[in-house]
Amino acid sequence: MRILLTNDDGIRAPGIRALWEALKEVAEIVVAAPAQQQSATGHSITVYHPIWVNQHTFDDPGISGWRIGGTPADSVKIALDTLMTVRPDLVVSGINQGPNLATDVLYSGTVSAAVEGAMHGIPAIAISLASYDLADFGPAAAFCRSLVKQIIAKNMPAFSLLNVNVPPVAEDEIKGVLITRLGRIEYENAFEKRTDPHGRTYYWMAGTPVQTNNASDTDVFAIQKQNISVTPIHFDLTDYPLLSQLRDWNWNSSKVL
Amino acid sequence: MRILLTNDDGIRAPGIRALWEALKEVAEIVVAAPAQQQSATGHSITVYHPIWVNQHTFDDPGISGWRIGGTPADSVKIALDTLMTVRPDLVVSGINQGPNLATDVLYSGTVSAAVEGAMHGIPAIAISLASYDLADFGPAAAFCRSLVKQIIAKNMPAFSLLNVNVPPVAEDEIKGVLITRLGRIEYENAFEKRTDPHGRTYYWMAGTPVQTNNASDTDVFAIQKQNISVTPIHFDLTDYPLLSQLRDWNWNSSKVL
Repeated sequence: MRILLTNDDGIRAPGIRALWEALKEVAEIVVAAPAQQQSATGHSITVYHPIWVNQHTFDDPGISGWRIGGTPADSVKIALDTLMTVRPDLVVSGINQGPNLATDVLYSGTVSAAVEGAMHGIPAIAISLASYDLADFGPAAAFCRSLVKQIIAKNMPAFSLLNVNVPPVAEDEIKGVLITRLGRIEYENAFEKRTDPHGRTYYWMAGTPVQTNNASDTDVFAIQKQNISVTPIHFDLTDYPLLSQLRDWNWNSSKVL
Repeated sequence: MRILLTNDDGIRAPGIRALWEALKEVAEIVVAAPAQQQSATGHSITVYHPIWVNQHTFDDPGISGWRIGGTPADSVKIALDTLMTVRPDLVVSGINQGPNLATDVLYSGTVSAAVEGAMHGIPAIAISLASYDLADFGPAAAFCRSLVKQIIAKNMPAFSLLNVNVPPVAEDEIKGVLITRLGRIEYENAFEKRTDPHGRTYYWMAGTPVQTNNASDTDVFAIQKQNISVTPIHFDLTDYPLLSQLRDWNWNSSKVL
């Protein structure tokens, strides 16, 4: 098995290292990850600037790969389209420091890297530790290794990915695994207004999550209750129910133009 | 009616000006748009840097608004959460110079700005002129004005948006309007490998679209046949069919950890 490993916290982040240490027992690992921190870059790609690619020397001799001067989506795209001579069986993105839940996945570089893999027809996993503080990536890495084996054994459909969040607790405090849908997170006080030393106004994105009513089948609920959440993700943004309704609107082009 | 107008080509782009000139006849327009070109930034948001906001003086005295030192999604977020004192009835993003079709919408700043509006519960439109050359935004702007009226009249559901692409032809050459689903675009030769003046290798994202088999109900087909495409978009990335299958996998946590 061959795995393309990436993330959005950058190639030197501890989360990606925890992953390759867990996964190298079951697969050949190739890393292509951003040179710099790329959190919240969503599915941004670099079209109008050059992308520098450097072979990265890891202090783990079993690992090879590239440091990409771009976004997480750039890293997966350039690895699959240009750098890798053999197509991987799986793309794994993470372990992110911090949750990637609910509507927030749209902003996530971690999830977007996995989506880019799925867009290339390669099954993918995005995995996040739901804490900005806890540094123990062990339980998340162990779960990912188990999940990788299961995805291959079950022959998960191409063009699919799984978004995994692991609660920030010790391994024996994890209640279980819940298969979930994406919930909803809203923020209040989303921006702080400040003044710079030269008297100019600026804003800083901040925000505290508002308690929304996340049902027991959502990823938000699963994490709140100390479960691992596994959410299957697709990338066809077509709204099919609304599509049917729209056919009844007036589209006579002589009137609309 | 009050419309929040944004784009990803930047506040000085001709496409956004064509929109406000068409829409100011039917609504009060407030602009919050990126200070700089932001194409292909996807749903990126600015979390780790300050966002400068300046009131922008337009040479059209009927227009007011802000120049945002961030991404399209930042612009909509900060306008709705902080800058606007009255909630708009609609968010309109565009007119983009260039198509936003099929799987490419995931990379689109134009579409992501409209998604951000829909995430706030405000119906939204993303509109693009499917050409990087043609400078006549007139037919697209006229269609958008008609669509705005219809969205309000039909009371389009909140949390929805419409992604519109207009073919780059004269108004009397537009065949009609097709309600479409997102198609599929693949690229070959996605990156060009080059060497900089100092001997270092870099890559530039390029790529030519490969002819994929886009059925007659897709946005790609509609544009190829000189129709306006209207695709309804949602942002729940949960893959519900796969979710049902996953419940049959082995999630006994004593085995997976």
